[in-house]
This record gives sequence, C-alpha cells and structure tokens, in this order.
Amino acid sequence: MQKDNFKWNRKDLLGTYDLSKEEIIFLLDTAKSMEEVLNRDVKKVPTLRGKSCVTLFYEPSTRTRTSFELAGKTRSADTINISVSASSAVKGETILDSVKNIEAMSVDCVIIRHNNSGVPHFIARNTKLAVINAGDGSHEHPSQALLDLLTIRDYKGTIEGLNIAIVGDILHSRVARSNIFALKKLNNNVNLVGPKTFVPKDFEKFGANVFHNLEEGLSGVDVVMVLRLQKERMGKCFYPTEREYAKFFSVNRQSIKYAKEDAIIMHPGPVNRGLEISSDVLDGEKSVVLAQVTRGVAVRMAVLYTLLSGGRFEDSN
Amino acid sequence: MQKDNFKWNRKDLLGTYDLSKEEIIFLLDTAKSMEEVLNRDVKKVPTLRGKSCVTLFYEPSTRTRTSFELAGKTRSADTINISVSASSAVKGETILDSVKNIEAMSVDCVIIRHNNSGVPHFIARNTKLAVINAGDGSHEHPSQALLDLLTIRDYKGTIEGLNIAIVGDILHSRVARSNIFALKKLNNNVNLVGPKTFVPKDFEKFGANVFHNLEEGLSGVDVVMVLRLQKERMGKCFYPTEREYAKFFSVNRQSIKYAKEDAIIMHPGPVNRGLEISSDVLDGEKSVVLAQVTRGVAVRMAVLYTLLSGGRFEDSN
Amino acid sequence: MQKDNFKWNRKDLLGTYDLSKEEIIFLLDTAKSMEEVLNRDVKKVPTLRGKSCVTLFYEPSTRTRTSFELAGKTRSADTINISVSASSAVKGETILDSVKNIEAMSVDCVIIRHNNSGVPHFIARNTKLAVINAGDGSHEHPSQALLDLLTIRDYKGTIEGLNIAIVGDILHSRVARSNIFALKKLNNNVNLVGPKTFVPKDFEKFGANVFHNLEEGLSGVDVVMVLRLQKERMGKCFYPTEREYAKFFSVNRQSIKYAKEDAIIMHPGPVNRGLEISSDVLDGEKSVVLAQVTRGVAVRMAVLYTLLSGGRFEDSN
Repeated sequence: MQKDNFKWNRKDLLGTYDLSKEEIIFLLDTAKSMEEVLNRDVKKVPTLRGKSCVTLFYEPSTRTRTSFELAGKTRSADTINISVSASSAVKGETILDSVKNIEAMSVDCVIIRHNNSGVPHFIARNTKLAVINAGDGSHEHPSQALLDLLTIRDYKGTIEGLNIAIVGDILHSRVARSNIFALKKLNNNVNLVGPKTFVPKDFEKFGANVFHNLEEGLSGVDVVMVLRLQKERMGKCFYPTEREYAKFFSVNRQSIKYAKEDAIIMHPGPVNRGLEISSDVLDGEKSVVLAQVTRGVAVRMAVLYTLLSGGRFEDSN
Repeated sequence: MQKDNFKWNRKDLLGTYDLSKEEIIFLLDTAKSMEEVLNRDVKKVPTLRGKSCVTLFYEPSTRTRTSFELAGKTRSADTINISVSASSAVKGETILDSVKNIEAMSVDCVIIRHNNSGVPHFIARNTKLAVINAGDGSHEHPSQALLDLLTIRDYKGTIEGLNIAIVGDILHSRVARSNIFALKKLNNNVNLVGPKTFVPKDFEKFGANVFHNLEEGLSGVDVVMVLRLQKERMGKCFYPTEREYAKFFSVNRQSIKYAKEDAIIMHPGPVNRGLEISSDVLDGEKSVVLAQVTRGVAVRMAVLYTLLSGGRFEDSN
Repeated sequence: MQKDNFKWNRKDLLGTYDLSKEEIIFLLDTAKSMEEVLNRDVKKVPTLRGKSCVTLFYEPSTRTRTSFELAGKTRSADTINISVSASSAVKGETILDSVKNIEAMSVDCVIIRHNNSGVPHFIARNTKLAVINAGDGSHEHPSQALLDLLTIRDYKGTIEGLNIAIVGDILHSRVARSNIFALKKLNNNVNLVGPKTFVPKDFEKFGANVFHNLEEGLSGVDVVMVLRLQKERMGKCFYPTEREYAKFFSVNRQSIKYAKEDAIIMHPGPVNRGLEISSDVLDGEKSVVLAQVTRGVAVRMAVLYTLLSGGRFEDSN
C-alpha cells in the first residue's frame, strides 16, 4: 500500500478513464481497510458524521442507490434521496440549477445517475460539491468497476496481468467501459466478447481484444464478467431473439469450460437468469456475484470517505 | 412475564400461525416494556445502533412502512426503503435475487410486503437475513395481529378467554388470518361475521364461529374488529354495492348495541368512513383505533429488537 | 433581538398572515443564530435528537422537502417522508385520519404540502402535532417568505421600510401571499407587477400597489422578487404565449435597470430560465437566488427548533 506517499487530490469521482493506477490502488486499499466494519455487530463508525450526501437519480436504481446509502449511513453521513419522477425536474429546472440548489443547502456530496453520458462531468465542473458518477448513459460507472477490481484482487490475489473476458453488450455498457479503462491501466489482458452489433471492432482502440464467439473469447481467461442483457434492445437491430442470444453467448455450464479451471464468474446485476447467464453458473462455486455486492458497500464507503475527508487517513475507522 | 425461562429462537417473524402461545406473550411483554420510550421527550435509545433494516415493499403502504421505520429509528437502527415501482424489480430480477443482494450488503433485516401469499416464507428459507412479513397477499400480517392483541390486553386486562368478533371480508384479509391464529392460541372465542362471499363456512376449521349477520355475530362480544372493505372487490361477485354492504354489515351506532356494553371497537386502517364503520363509532369512546396505531410502533420495536439482538434482554432500553 | 422578553407560544406555523411582527423577527433571529452550524465541518448538533418529523406531501417537491429534511437532520431529528402517490391516500383515507395516525405513532411534527388552500389549518386545529405549512394551494408558504425576509435583511441591512416589487403570477402564488403579509407587517412598500389576469386590482386591499408594467412597478425598488411562471396556465386565459409574457414581464438586463442600482434579485425556484427571468440576470451579481436557498435550511432549522422545543433557547446549538 502506498498510503504514506500518496495524496488524493480529486474533488470528484467521475470515471476510471481519468484515474491513475495509483489512484485506483489507493481506493481499493482504502475499501479493504473499511470492509472490516461491515462484519462487526455494530456496523457504524462516526467518521462522516455531520456530512450529508444527496443521491440524485434520473434513472431508477435499487442496488446502486441502496449501496451508497448504506455506505453513507455506516460512516454516519446523512443521505437524502431525490429521484426524478418525484422531483422538480418535471417543472423544467435545468439539472445544473438543481445541483446548485443542493450545493446552496450546504450538502457535501451529490451522487448522480443520469441517462445522458457526460452529465456528471458537466455538473462537476460547475459545482463545489463532490460529484460521484453513479452511472451516466453508456459512458462510465466507476464505483462498479472499482468493486469489480476489488473482488478480482481478493479472489485472484492480484489485479495486474490477468486475462479477463467481458461478455455481452459492450457497446451500451457503462460498466464495461469503466472496467476496460481500469483493467487496462493495471496491465490486464481484456477480451470483449459478443455479437458484432454489441462488440464493434472499434473497441480495439482501448487496447482490448475483440471476439465474436465464446470459445475464443473465454479461452484461458481468469475472470469472466457477464454483462446484463438489456431486453429493451431486443429486436431493435441489435439481436433477433432472447433464444438466439442465449444460444451463442450465454455463459453456462458448457461455455464456462473454455475459461481456466479456476476462473471466477462476475455479473454487475440485476441478472436475467437463463439469458446472459445460466442459473447453475450464477449459483455455482465459481460465481462471485454476491461477493461483488458486498465489496460495493466497502468501495462506496472508501469513495465517500476519500472525497469528503480529503483523503486524510488518520482515523479511517 | 416468563422472560426468565424463555429463550426466543426464531430468525424470522413470518406469521402467527407458527408462533407458540409463549412466543406471542413474549413479544407482547417485550413491546410493553418498550412502549415507555415513546412517551419520553427524547424518543431515542441506542439499542439497535449499527443495525440496518430494509423495507422491501411490493405493495404501496404508508402506515406499516412508517411504523416500522419509526420503530427502527427509535431504536437507532438505520432504515432504508425500497418500493418496487422505483426498483429493479421492473428489470426482471427475481425477488430472491433482490433479497440476496440486500443480504450481501451486510443488512441485518428485511421487512417484506408482497401481494403474493408465501413470498416472505420462501425468502426466509433462503436467506440468513431476519425476515419480517409485513403482509403477504391474503395470508398473514403478524405484526398487525400482535399490535391488536396488545391493544386488547391493555384495554380488557387480559388476552385470554375473551369473545371477539371480526367483521368484514375475512376471505381476503391477512389481518383476519393472523388474528384468528393468534387469538385461538390464547383460547379466545372468535366470531367471523360478514356476507357468505366473504365468510365461507370453511373458516370453522380454524376453530372460529361463522355468522352472516351482525346481530348474532356481535352478540355478547368484548371486542369488535372491523376490517377494511376493499372497494376494488365491489361488483366483482363479492358484494353488489357499497350501500348494500353498509346496510347489513356496517358497524354503527345501532349494530354496536349487539356487543357488550363495554366492548371496544378496532380497525386496522385505513378506514372507509361510513362504509364498514360509521364515523360516530370510529370517533366514539369505544373506539381504540388510534391506540392500536400507537401500539404498532411498540410492537415493531419489540419485533426488531427480538430478531436483531437474539432476544437478549440485558439492556432493553 | 428581543429574545429575552419574548415567548413563542404557537403550536404551528401555518402562515405569515397570523404572525406578529415580533414573531417574524424572532424566527429570523433564531435562524440567524443557527446558520453558523451550516458552515462547520461537522454540520450536526444534537438539539432535536429523539424528535421525529414527517413530511406529508400531496404535491411533488424536491427543494422544500429536501430543505426541511436537511434542517431536521442537522438538528439530529429523524425525518420520514410520505409522498401521496405511494401512500394510502389512494385507498380513500381522509387526510385528517392520515395525520391522526401519524400523531398516534408518537411523531412530533408534520410538514404538510397540499394542493388545496386551508388544509394545514384544518389539520392543525385537529391534532396535537406541530403542523408546518409547506405550501397550501394558492394560499401560503410561510417558510419561503421567512427565508426571503432573512435574505433581504442580510443583503439590505434591514427588513423594514424597503421598496419591494413582486413580479409575476401573484394571483396563484402562495409565495407572493406569504411575502405580502409578512412584508407589510414590517412596514415595507410592496409593488405587485404583472398582467391584469395575474395581478387583480383587488390586491390593493393588502396594502400593496398594483402595476401592470415593469417600468412603473420596478421604479426605485430595493428588491425584485420574480415568481415562477407556471406553464400549465399558459393558453388558459391567463396569458397567450410564453414569448408574449417574456416580452412584457421578463426580468432581464433591460428591465432590471428600472430598479435601484443596488437592487437585489430574488426567485423562489425552480426557475424557467429565459421566461420570467433571463439567465444573465439570474446568474448575475445582483442575484441572491442561491443565498435564499442557503437561508432556507437555516429558517427551517429555526422553525423546527422553535416548534419542537417550545422556543426554549438555552442550548440553541
């Protein structure tokens, strides 16, 4: 751990694209040091007491919002939820004005999810608040990538020099993008696997390898990240039917054999059982899907703590 | 009180059907001992600090959700609300996967309401979380029955050997079922009163008496529990019109005379004034409807405390 | 400050119409004394620990609800949100029954927003709870007026004897009414400015001056309060088009010149940029719009503190 000679100096967490290798490792190490509190009988430490966070979600979400909310409460921060359907967004206020209002209420941090790529970046440039991108369009979802990396490191013993496959709709996936950026910075080999409509050749520019069948794409990998198939894309030029997709790209008992014997299987959730992944693999011994969820809370505690306390480490518990 | 020689050893509260007489009395006694904090100026004790509960409601509810939330906050637990319309349920995730995710986030307890009977039981068998059934279909709503019993005991001095009438749509009522199971275990005489479509002869198997008119059903009872009439059933074979129902089964100034002079009137809320109960009776001196609501918070404090602290009683305040 | 010889003795805050000059000044002074905590690193004081507030909103709102929620949390009160679409209001319960239930749950305070004028007043007469009107129809929104007055006092050095213009749809505005009542009690000169459909001659009965053009209405004023134009009124007899309204009544670089050189510009939000106010004025140096939002939290802390602690001032921090 390089805590001693490393100083965090970002106001926001917008994406992994901007993060240095040191910053990524710093956040993973911080998360690791905070995980312990989640196993206590009393899961509460006062480190962020008197700090307040607003979750400002323009898309529905249970898991990410709940994970941030639990992370905040475990650190004793106050969290306030604003979801858009119940908000003044319908009244025509600009997003920036909404955020400036939140800032004016002496809040410390805003956690934004928006269906348009780039919104959190625009907001971050225009507010003194710490801004956390909880998913913007098809762009980035950095806390998801960080929890994925932490899970990989815990299960494979390292997060560098691995062979990692990401399977599914890479094109529309913010989870994939954030993972690709972060994994490449840590010198991993990344295979992108899916139909051509979902995995354009273009993605090789990120340093990834592009495959259009599972056998090649999973060959010899340490980690298989399965992406959620968004059913609303079905029949809209991207893929013909669920059955067709599952036949060629479902990660199941058969296809998983292409990967290494000790490969782990990941999924960001929510899962379509029997579509992008079979139930036996999801519930099987190679699956670390729920371990990812647990690390999600630790990673978000680390992110909140790092941004809101300026990365000071004196009293991390 | 049998606190000394009694040890609570259930992970969940799913229904009154499974509870023993001792378990019911234990929860009522625990609620009683916790009620006092609600009359304090500072209504807060630290007993569940660092514990977290998720309310996972697949049906809308104000009163039950708020009651659990207040009970949790009074005990210093963190509470997080998930309601389904704003959740990933729309994304096709199974309920069990949703709960497994909540479990993976190091939450201690999930409070579930679902429109299908049996869902909380299925969940409970598959999670290490404490599961509280906050209403499943037409099946059970145990915390409601417990608060009803506590109210009866407070007002009648006992909760055994009484004559108790339940009036209305017994067939579809989870409140009725949980009350019938609990009241029979405590050796009460239970009359079920309503039209034949709502009170099938079949219910005698639970040890209850079936009546199809108020005069007979309320005759000599100590307690009248009026159920909410669910208007969506009107005109759907169950009863013809509101006026018709009210004419024969409304608990009002006239029909209440069939009960004992000192009978108390109960209703789980929300009330349709002038339909299943008249306003003068609801607001009259025999009504204990708001006393039920108050005891609801105490009962839910007791349930949360019992499940989350393993029934240890050392520092109940 | 007249704290020493003044005793607050209202249960509720329903409107500025009923408040005395002394009561208004008391609340402003209390807010001022509480503002400091918002600038601390740890924005939390324990003064309302163990008190609980319910926000009961029958209209959507982000800003007011969030402001009250933050105010409560900063004072360590528990806050529970009930919004109507997710509540039992759909089940036909009366509003009063909903509030009586909240009261029965040992809550201390209910913060109500309702689309019908007078609802909070009716509720307040029928509950022991402290009731705060967070906006009722076209009637009153007292905490908004108080935060406006506090902002004016901070920026103009006084809140008496000023010339103040309110521009827009006075007829339907609860913000305007609460401000007119409060400003007149403090001996300010109030100009109401807007088209005849929005500013009827009738309003002179409140002691205000009525103007139908900006040049006259803004002439020599110290403060310009711009109201939000509610687009749903457009084309419904009140005004023909947005362009027509903006041409004659938009507060912009040109029209602002009619006011005093050192005039401040206010808006209760959310803003329709380019409609009732131009972006350059809103973002310009005369604008105190975000300063209003900040004072909103302080004012709501003061209101909660005053109502829930009986105005005792011993340990205001």
